[in-house]
Amino acid sequence: MPPTSSSAVFRRRPGARHPVPVQIAEPALGPGDPRVTWREAFRAVRAETERRTAPLGPEDQVVQSMADASPTKWHRAHTAWFFEQFLLVPHLPGYRVFDEGFGYLFNSYYVAAGPRHARPRRGLLTRPDCAEIAAFRDHVDQAVELLLATADDRRMAQVLRILEIGLHHEQQHQELILTDILHAFAQNPTLPAYDANWQAPPPVSATGFAELPVHTIGFAGEGYCFDNERPAHEVFLQPARIARGLVTNAQWLEFIADGGYSSPALWLSDGWAAVEAEGWSAPGYWRERDGEWLALTLAGERPVDPKAAVCHVSYYEADAFARWAGRDLPTEAQWEIAARAGLLDHAFGTVWQWTRSAYSPYPGYRAAEGALGEYNGKFMVNQMVLRGGSHATPAGHSRVSYRNFFYPSARWQFSGVRLAEYPA
Amino acid sequence: MPPTSSSAVFRRRPGARHPVPVQIAEPALGPGDPRVTWREAFRAVRAETERRTAPLGPEDQVVQSMADASPTKWHRAHTAWFFEQFLLVPHLPGYRVFDEGFGYLFNSYYVAAGPRHARPRRGLLTRPDCAEIAAFRDHVDQAVELLLATADDRRMAQVLRILEIGLHHEQQHQELILTDILHAFAQNPTLPAYDANWQAPPPVSATGFAELPVHTIGFAGEGYCFDNERPAHEVFLQPARIARGLVTNAQWLEFIADGGYSSPALWLSDGWAAVEAEGWSAPGYWRERDGEWLALTLAGERPVDPKAAVCHVSYYEADAFARWAGRDLPTEAQWEIAARAGLLDHAFGTVWQWTRSAYSPYPGYRAAEGALGEYNGKFMVNQMVLRGGSHATPAGHSRVSYRNFFYPSARWQFSGVRLAEYPA
Amino acid sequence: MPPTSSSAVFRRRPGARHPVPVQIAEPALGPGDPRVTWREAFRAVRAETERRTAPLGPEDQVVQSMADASPTKWHRAHTAWFFEQFLLVPHLPGYRVFDEGFGYLFNSYYVAAGPRHARPRRGLLTRPDCAEIAAFRDHVDQAVELLLATADDRRMAQVLRILEIGLHHEQQHQELILTDILHAFAQNPTLPAYDANWQAPPPVSATGFAELPVHTIGFAGEGYCFDNERPAHEVFLQPARIARGLVTNAQWLEFIADGGYSSPALWLSDGWAAVEAEGWSAPGYWRERDGEWLALTLAGERPVDPKAAVCHVSYYEADAFARWAGRDLPTEAQWEIAARAGLLDHAFGTVWQWTRSAYSPYPGYRAAEGALGEYNGKFMVNQMVLRGGSHATPAGHSRVSYRNFFYPSARWQFSGVRLAEYPA
Amino acid sequence: MPPTSSSAVFRRRPGARHPVPVQIAEPALGPGDPRVTWREAFRAVRAETERRTAPLGPEDQVVQSMADASPTKWHRAHTAWFFEQFLLVPHLPGYRVFDEGFGYLFNSYYVAAGPRHARPRRGLLTRPDCAEIAAFRDHVDQAVELLLATADDRRMAQVLRILEIGLHHEQQHQELILTDILHAFAQNPTLPAYDANWQAPPPVSATGFAELPVHTIGFAGEGYCFDNERPAHEVFLQPARIARGLVTNAQWLEFIADGGYSSPALWLSDGWAAVEAEGWSAPGYWRERDGEWLALTLAGERPVDPKAAVCHVSYYEADAFARWAGRDLPTEAQWEIAARAGLLDHAFGTVWQWTRSAYSPYPGYRAAEGALGEYNGKFMVNQMVLRGGSHATPAGHSRVSYRNFFYPSARWQFSGVRLAEYPA
Repeated sequence: MPPTSSSAVFRRRPGARHPVPVQIAEPALGPGDPRVTWREAFRAVRAETERRTAPLGPEDQVVQSMADASPTKWHRAHTAWFFEQFLLVPHLPGYRVFDEGFGYLFNSYYVAAGPRHARPRRGLLTRPDCAEIAAFRDHVDQAVELLLATADDRRMAQVLRILEIGLHHEQQHQELILTDILHAFAQNPTLPAYDANWQAPPPVSATGFAELPVHTIGFAGEGYCFDNERPAHEVFLQPARIARGLVTNAQWLEFIADGGYSSPALWLSDGWAAVEAEGWSAPGYWRERDGEWLALTLAGERPVDPKAAVCHVSYYEADAFARWAGRDLPTEAQWEIAARAGLLDHAFGTVWQWTRSAYSPYPGYRAAEGALGEYNGKFMVNQMVLRGGSHATPAGHSRVSYRNFFYPSARWQFSGVRLAEYPA
Repeated sequence: MPPTSSSAVFRRRPGARHPVPVQIAEPALGPGDPRVTWREAFRAVRAETERRTAPLGPEDQVVQSMADASPTKWHRAHTAWFFEQFLLVPHLPGYRVFDEGFGYLFNSYYVAAGPRHARPRRGLLTRPDCAEIAAFRDHVDQAVELLLATADDRRMAQVLRILEIGLHHEQQHQELILTDILHAFAQNPTLPAYDANWQAPPPVSATGFAELPVHTIGFAGEGYCFDNERPAHEVFLQPARIARGLVTNAQWLEFIADGGYSSPALWLSDGWAAVEAEGWSAPGYWRERDGEWLALTLAGERPVDPKAAVCHVSYYEADAFARWAGRDLPTEAQWEIAARAGLLDHAFGTVWQWTRSAYSPYPGYRAAEGALGEYNGKFMVNQMVLRGGSHATPAGHSRVSYRNFFYPSARWQFSGVRLAEYPA
Repeated sequence: MPPTSSSAVFRRRPGARHPVPVQIAEPALGPGDPRVTWREAFRAVRAETERRTAPLGPEDQVVQSMADASPTKWHRAHTAWFFEQFLLVPHLPGYRVFDEGFGYLFNSYYVAAGPRHARPRRGLLTRPDCAEIAAFRDHVDQAVELLLATADDRRMAQVLRILEIGLHHEQQHQELILTDILHAFAQNPTLPAYDANWQAPPPVSATGFAELPVHTIGFAGEGYCFDNERPAHEVFLQPARIARGLVTNAQWLEFIADGGYSSPALWLSDGWAAVEAEGWSAPGYWRERDGEWLALTLAGERPVDPKAAVCHVSYYEADAFARWAGRDLPTEAQWEIAARAGLLDHAFGTVWQWTRSAYSPYPGYRAAEGALGEYNGKFMVNQMVLRGGSHATPAGHSRVSYRNFFYPSARWQFSGVRLAEYPA
Repeated sequence: MPPTSSSAVFRRRPGARHPVPVQIAEPALGPGDPRVTWREAFRAVRAETERRTAPLGPEDQVVQSMADASPTKWHRAHTAWFFEQFLLVPHLPGYRVFDEGFGYLFNSYYVAAGPRHARPRRGLLTRPDCAEIAAFRDHVDQAVELLLATADDRRMAQVLRILEIGLHHEQQHQELILTDILHAFAQNPTLPAYDANWQAPPPVSATGFAELPVHTIGFAGEGYCFDNERPAHEVFLQPARIARGLVTNAQWLEFIADGGYSSPALWLSDGWAAVEAEGWSAPGYWRERDGEWLALTLAGERPVDPKAAVCHVSYYEADAFARWAGRDLPTEAQWEIAARAGLLDHAFGTVWQWTRSAYSPYPGYRAAEGALGEYNGKFMVNQMVLRGGSHATPAGHSRVSYRNFFYPSARWQFSGVRLAEYPA
């Protein structure tokens, strides 16, 4: 039974800066009620964000180590703001935003949602502090649960569509929390560990190449997908074979030993410019000490495991490696078709895999209306598609049609390589 | 009849800096001899370069107005070096290079051909001066003609393959001579005219959209093409329609008047960043004075003609315009298929037309072996394909499979827009 | 009575990361004992640093808002390191450094003390966190007190010389803690207050100009001074008059209203370049809202008080203002002589005052030997001298011979203006 | 006898772009007439500019190799514009400016003379070409001579004051023509010679140190000086000694061999930053080949002469060298007093000599009114004074009170080192 007036549930106590939601009794919902299912999903995703944050102190959470990365604190607040802006404000009557200034601070790039703080300056925001952001998340959590408990069925359809996007959105940021803190720690000469017991993915095995059938790609089933995975469409594939396994550190060490990083003929022109400008001579976070290669991981610095999949390489490096190996990178269509056919080992859970496909709209792609239409479409230039998922990707967030994308110079992600080859 | 020893034909006079080719008698070749045909083609292309240079003084020829552009003088020397390096040195016995230092100065980016002068510093080379570069071109011309006259038939096959590439290469630079000098003149507050009688292309007409058949794209016929046009391959097209005509200045003025340059929602994210960083508010070389729009052309500053095709727009602008118009840009496959079917007006000779296709290798693409393999392949990232040809494109250099490519921010080329649309 | 072996007083417990000083009984020292006086001075200075830090949370303490500023946390650690490096390591037998890695992290610029973390990257150090730095400070505090209690008289002379430098050094950083956090807060759209009850200095009064006698400048008395204040030397002054009071906000508002920030003729050439590059149109931290000028202060945003001394202006602005006023800035010699003669109001405690003197060595200046010789000498180019002291300057740290110095573009300090004039 | 109407002497022929001065008969002036003396001085200075330009082709004259340097062509036009703007326009009735657009192109930095082309873009101006600039100079020459011949005596006083400044101004640019073209040629891998017979200054000899008397500095005599040399004023010097000779290349090679360029302790903090940013390891234009040091000079590349004065060093290098040598740089007052006393060898004609004096106004300095007041005053910050003169300095342009000034990082001037020392 909904409250007579939900606007009564947010009160601003005298002298308090933020409104305080009044604790509401949990509505009596049966175990099979879909509202319960959604509430549990919401709680699980939100808790996972906090679980990933737990090993980090307030000092860790405030720093932005490059313009592409964001502070942990910001990720936590931004994902809360996403629910507030797109779900609570339009759909929960009487909702009072936690802080009128947060929209400016925590909007990432949604032009339609108003002006926002410049991205490279996110690391300058010492306030609001972590405690205040925790309060913000609590406030949003309670309001979302209230909405789930009280919305009538007509409204629920809209609510669930946005809630679902919000959960997938938050899961994307869960992965970024890890990639971004690793980059921040790599700037620190003391090389802190995020979690000394962090488990790297198991060694990978490379078992030859698989032939590719002709097929359809793109998302066509039930369940959730981002708009850039649609529409499903037929693709006409040339004959090709795709590697079952991932490129390993052992193979990469051969590439290094063979002068891979000092042979411009192996590189794309822009790639070689990046090698020279950035001084790359090995994957990201690697360094050599006394003849041994070490890599900074979320568990601190560790010897490079030759059997593990190579990680933290840019598209430029992946492309140069493929050329050195006399092979190619797969297209995203090849990747997806092979994955659908169950031909790929380690497709998910180890490293993202660069494809040779520029990130472009699918034929017939249409961005959603409104601010959420900015989610994917406006980035469809200058970036390359990665497929699969890494060991930092939230569980259940990997699917064959998922299109990740980064600039070809980016390598702070958990990004690796799978090869392909074409008949001569 | 070949000379007894062709090594005798280059002499270095005492005290002279450069070797001097001994004038040779033109071999008596009949009018139907293919050697004559090639010699005439060679003379025509080389003369066209000089014809385009003629209106420019020595001061004009030395300046490099941005890193992407090159001095006229450099274009003239680089195209001569191309023949010297790839044709004369390997194939003309006894050939003496004009100047040992020129390889360093005039190699553009061929890593396999040795080290080279940094691209952004080409404009600092006041020496060799124009007279010396003219002498270099003469030297190369005479040697190429000698080679054509004296090579035996076995060698001729190789010679002609490289000669053909060299001519197409020089034609590409002929176009750049014009685009680059226009950019240089645009930096000068006095707005010089390259040729006060330069004829802009005639007004264009837009006559609706054409349906697209399914087809094969890529080069498969006789005659010359660059390696990036191969192999021909089938493409699977979604239903789409492509505009018969080009976007006009009148349409662009509507876009401007409607706030196109100040509406971030119309732009790709990187595109909007370029608008803000570069301060774009109209196509390149436009300025408004007393309520009238003027454009710097090769004929000096002229009023913007509403009926002419819009020109000097970047990919970002083309994409934003298409979004504003509720349309799309065509893919390169759509463009080529429509052009093959004769569906397009003004496909060639007016402006290059941006496509929404990132510049990528065709399925099965293989770069040539050796230095010439660097011609196209190593640029296949971060750039977008343009199709067709402009009024600065050398005659006979336009074909339906031709793939031009530039960074999406570039707009000093003669680049315009053709729209497409997809069924809802 | 010294302990039998001071090396026994630092123990590393099994499993602990840092050594732990064993608590020692305070030696029985009489109230008149100079060791007691120094210990009290040491305690007072160290406590003042913590008092200034107290309003700041861990998030606040980690951020570096520009390369010239440092995080609060870093200031706290660096001042502790200074005592460890220059006092404890050479003079306290058995002293164990708190953490071998801290020298790298917290050395500012002392080349002789070894390599160090790059200055602009100080804000990337989330670890060591604030708690660990507090432990570091405690460790150093206890060791310094132990040294004071146990050093024999011969050693005490050296100890006190360095201790004195260290205390003055820490006081300089106390001022920077405030200037730097104000700059950090100014980057935050929420404009946090450091201390809502922070007292701005009282209004100032301008009471005409004073004639200058001829005199000696530089430090010649008892007590402490930095090396750059020596040697005292005679200066030959031209006739001049110096303002008794400081330039006020009211005067600065006139300057603004009269187009001061848009009249290039008033500015030094480099100064005008700074105005254009930085977009200056008012003193630092000012903004206009609804026709009213507001300034961010340590107490948060406040209306600009017309009677207060202008603050947060660069040398370039001070110089332009003086030109606009038909006056000059004083030389540092003029300032010092006037201050010695008691002719100046508000010489100390309000704002630092720019002089027209470039920061140069005094005649006969010699930098100290060793790392401490890097304290001042190596900065004697490109900077301008400021005299006096601000309301952020620690008590007792102001003296007539003190030479502060900053680049002429800096304005995040509490820097203001006093005028001078020369007879026509 | 003046013409009845001097406005008749400039005619614009139908269709011509520029006005044409009508050739006038040279007035009959006697040999002792001061107008003749000034006319001859004017002709000599103007001819010297052209003499320095003669070895340079049009391509050489258009290039600007860094923002601090200017094209030869620009120097030639700017010095003509100076006479047109400050002498002819206000004082020659009926004068018609050669081209209305030239003020914008060739004003260097005189804000009062109107807007101007951005300095770093001077090298983009291929037009007006060299021939048109020669015509501009001729036009101005004829007009100045007409003015000298026709002005009445009252006006002559003003005319001569400006003419004199203009001549000294042009002589300063004569020196820059050489320093700037040397920098341009140094960017060219072919290392062109300006004049293969250019004579370097003779070897220098270092003959100990001279004691300094107390004295007055600044210009107080007859003849010409710039405003920054006034007023003459007494200085109070501490005891010091100044080197009679200049630092030689042999001494500099010792400094290099002793690790001078890799010992941060020898350098000012900003200086060391410049060493690292610029990669300095020897004076400007030096390079080592097969164990031998070579230097690019105006005569092309030549072995470094150990007996010659070191040249092309920045202030930072001069300062580091002095510290390495256990000496100091002189102040400008010390230098001037010693030069007045005849104590210095090679004071003029070899290299400019860095002093440790920041470029500041003399006590009581007042900039001139109007645009010419911008000549010196607005540069009085961030730069260091050099004294003496180089072998590129125009004859008669060296005097003991002359104050040259450059940023401490500049080293494309002919700048060297003279040492000083202070008693311990």
